[in-house]
Amino acid sequence: MRALYSRSARGSVSDLGEKALIRRIARWLGAASPKAPAGMGDDCAVLAPARGRELLTIDPVIAGVHFDGKVSPGDAGSKLVKRNLSDIAAMGGAPRAAVIALALDPRVSVAWLEAFMKGAARESRRHHVPIVGGDVASLPGGFVATLALTGEAAGRAVTRTGARAGDWIYVTGVLGRSLETGHHHAFRPRLAEGAWLAGRREVRSMMDVSDGLAKDLASLAPRGCVPALVEGAVPRRKGASLKEALGDGEDYELVFTLDKGAGRADFEAAWGRAFPSVRLSRIGSFVAVGAPPAGAVRLSDLKGYEHLRQA
Amino acid sequence: MRALYSRSARGSVSDLGEKALIRRIARWLGAASPKAPAGMGDDCAVLAPARGRELLTIDPVIAGVHFDGKVSPGDAGSKLVKRNLSDIAAMGGAPRAAVIALALDPRVSVAWLEAFMKGAARESRRHHVPIVGGDVASLPGGFVATLALTGEAAGRAVTRTGARAGDWIYVTGVLGRSLETGHHHAFRPRLAEGAWLAGRREVRSMMDVSDGLAKDLASLAPRGCVPALVEGAVPRRKGASLKEALGDGEDYELVFTLDKGAGRADFEAAWGRAFPSVRLSRIGSFVAVGAPPAGAVRLSDLKGYEHLRQA
Repeated sequence: MRALYSRSARGSVSDLGEKALIRRIARWLGAASPKAPAGMGDDCAVLAPARGRELLTIDPVIAGVHFDGKVSPGDAGSKLVKRNLSDIAAMGGAPRAAVIALALDPRVSVAWLEAFMKGAARESRRHHVPIVGGDVASLPGGFVATLALTGEAAGRAVTRTGARAGDWIYVTGVLGRSLETGHHHAFRPRLAEGAWLAGRREVRSMMDVSDGLAKDLASLAPRGCVPALVEGAVPRRKGASLKEALGDGEDYELVFTLDKGAGRADFEAAWGRAFPSVRLSRIGSFVAVGAPPAGAVRLSDLKGYEHLRQA
Repeated sequence: MRALYSRSARGSVSDLGEKALIRRIARWLGAASPKAPAGMGDDCAVLAPARGRELLTIDPVIAGVHFDGKVSPGDAGSKLVKRNLSDIAAMGGAPRAAVIALALDPRVSVAWLEAFMKGAARESRRHHVPIVGGDVASLPGGFVATLALTGEAAGRAVTRTGARAGDWIYVTGVLGRSLETGHHHAFRPRLAEGAWLAGRREVRSMMDVSDGLAKDLASLAPRGCVPALVEGAVPRRKGASLKEALGDGEDYELVFTLDKGAGRADFEAAWGRAFPSVRLSRIGSFVAVGAPPAGAVRLSDLKGYEHLRQA
């Protein structure tokens, strides 16, 4: 595995220098990066306006936080693009264009960075989202790559609000042990599924599962309601406990709510035809605070991922 | 002056915790941050599409690199917004909306961060560019705030390319000693001036001066041409040498080129009426390589700001 830092000055980004590095980055990105003014090389990238409403999100990957030495640089670069794509998917949108700001120690290895950027370029090409610009700056002792992504919602943008008491809760895929299994960088953002769900009026709210389902569900809960989950219905990754499925985070699955008055069976059958290989689980519903049904999972013990833990 | 790191665990962002911190950030931003879906609180912000073409840029401020302990946290936050606004100004555009990703050591002081975010909010309100979302993540040992900004070019987006041999070179304001004088955070982004220049057809290309004029001018040079500057015409900040004016960087002024066949006097008179208090200097022109006029400034000795210097 390539190391983040170069052992000698030769092979480091500072040895290469900023100007040559930016030329290399353009080469590494290749077809993922159009020329200015639609891409790299000017003060801003110039894009056609969004069709419908525009979506905007930003997320970083940080060495030692979002990836470690066990994750290849290519997978780390791919994760940077995909975790932002997952946010676009969570609104039911389509991605448009990305910019990347690199903050990196001058000792970072050029070979490592090449693999990182090529990983980002691979996802960029796969999802037809050009990387249209960015910035390179020095960060003593660290590596932070921050990607901002624009998207568009041709029809409806599905938000986190909109669920009502009694609405059903669904989740895609399986949950838990994302870090241990490499799912946190190997996942496929649910863009097609999100866009399909945005087209179904009975879907009232949606988000992606990034901090752990137990924590994230609080964002979907209608006022005065809590989620009541059926333990056996929570889809677990192989080997994952219920606690891990609900608390681990970095699942990058979609969780959404369905109008309690809608035709559940029709909806589930339509999903099965659209995405025959993607598991969909109805895991519970939103109920009034203080009135949990017998056997509902106690979520209060699960905190989810805390981003500011002190070492 | 407030310190970046809290002396005790109490008063640090990790003591406050992520959830409470995000609530505080929303409060600090106040009117600068609309509610979801147009602002914070969902997977993406949802915006109206740009009128005309869309502009997109990203730039960070990094503790120890873009500001140090001599810069107040409010000024550092203000700089984060303004250096991105300067990129929108350089295309002649108008800003639309921003997202901020914070990567910060858990020991960062809540009081420091409050002042930083309030500085960002002040510029956001001043320029009517809402901060519509972001991310908070842990960065052991550092502080990186990255802002991505969208804008729109109602008419023309002025790019760096377009100058021809013989075209005049103009620069706004005065140059040099930006770090020593505090200009690097106290500057006013040239949004009104950039939009006005975009409306003048005789302006062929434009950029902002961020890495030093000598280095930046290379980006505007037509193929086969070099800039020939008149030493006495280069506008220097009080106390700045020619070398400092051309090489220091972080000036955040606009440099642009004027069609050599255009009416210079008319253009300069129109500028004077539009911006009577903003100095405009015609500093030279682009000439064929190998044919510098007698007395032209030798720029080859000036390297400009190098972002990846090894400590």
